Amino acid sequence: MPYVNIKITREGASGEQKAALIAGVTRLLQDVLGKNPATTVVVIDEVDTDNWGIGGESVTVRRARGS
Amino acid sequence: MPYVNIKITREGASGEQKAALIAGVTRLLQDVLGKNPATTVVVIDEVDTDNWGIGGESVTVRRARGS
Amino acid sequence: MPYVNIKITREGASGEQKAALIAGVTRLLQDVLGKNPATTVVVIDEVDTDNWGIGGESVTVRRARGS
Amino acid sequence: MPYVNIKITREGASGEQKAALIAGVTRLLQDVLGKNPATTVVVIDEVDTDNWGIGGESVTVRRARGS
Amino acid sequence: MPYVNIKITREGASGEQKAALIAGVTRLLQDVLGKNPATTVVVIDEVDTDNWGIGGESVTVRRARGS
Amino acid sequence: MPYVNIKITREGASGEQKAALIAGVTRLLQDVLGKNPATTVVVIDEVDTDNWGIGGESVTVRRARGS
Repeated sequence: MPYVNIKITREGASGEQKAALIAGVTRLLQDVLGKNPATTVVVIDEVDTDNWGIGGESVTVRRARGS
Repeated sequence: MPYVNIKITREGASGEQKAALIAGVTRLLQDVLGKNPATTVVVIDEVDTDNWGIGGESVTVRRARGS
Repeated sequence: MPYVNIKITREGASGEQKAALIAGVTRLLQDVLGKNPATTVVVIDEVDTDNWGIGGESVTVRRARGS
Repeated sequence: MPYVNIKITREGASGEQKAALIAGVTRLLQDVLGKNPATTVVVIDEVDTDNWGIGGESVTVRRARGS
Repeated sequence: MPYVNIKITREGASGEQKAALIAGVTRLLQDVLGKNPATTVVVIDEVDTDNWGIGGESVTVRRARGS
Repeated sequence: MPYVNIKITREGASGEQKAALIAGVTRLLQDVLGKNPATTVVVIDEVDTDNWGIGGESVTVRRARGS
């Protein structure tokens, strides 16, 4: 019954990679806490780099500067 | 003053259906808890089926398999 | 398969009231969008009035002032 | 290390405006709580006006009516 | 730089189990997407069973009935 | 009408500090985007250090090690 929300920058994650995240986090919750995979929900949000900030700057600006 | 976030898969919910969700959940909070509808906020997120997982698989894969 | 998060101020909502929110929002999603109630997840967060702001002030301060 | 999520209606906020939100909220957390800006994460979600409700109505409907 | 939020019912997860979730999901994001573990943030929310609904009922009620 | 969620570790932020966060972020949204402070909602979540991970470890463990 767990609910997991994964937020990443939108930079071309493939369907296979997103499937691997869903499978992996569902298995982790089963292994660590015995949670039933059938009712584990995972939602992935892909966020534009203009809309993600760290260190007081957007990722767009950081990438442009090379950091 | 409540805040409600509704996440559904992106599968063509119409403007009328989303309006019905907003009206319905606002009324529910008024009926059950006496919350003021004027300040009840509802945000609906529509999530791609590749980005929604249940049972360790994406909804895209489940739909393709017919479950 | 929808996921709903309801945030309210922590002011003594009873178990019965919270059960009514869970039942009501699950039914609403079934009525409006045909969503399967068996896999609809609802999470209620009760937030201290010190930690909820509206109009630039905490609810604690607004209540003390009588608004 | 704080995490801040800002949700606004999608109405043409520019990259400069979003950068100002990221810089401003990061500085606020440093000024008020001494939080390290290097690890402060800010995520901005822009939400369609059909998907944002207040007062039991979508923002789309309210704007059309002129309120 | 990913941000992960894991919501589980509050039922006595230990510090070791929560540490295993944090380590496991951080490693998963590195393995699948090459994300830098140093800036991966994980927040675990433990939710009272009265406040978690599935199938239109709270987990408290479901557990009492034995399902 | 914006909604802002601020997550910080639970380490004794005072009512005054939380009020300053609420006032500051509400003013920022008014200054940058012209948002009406009367309907800006801010919710602060204070998270136990066992439940917050960065760099693959909980904040509890990092603090104990002195980093």
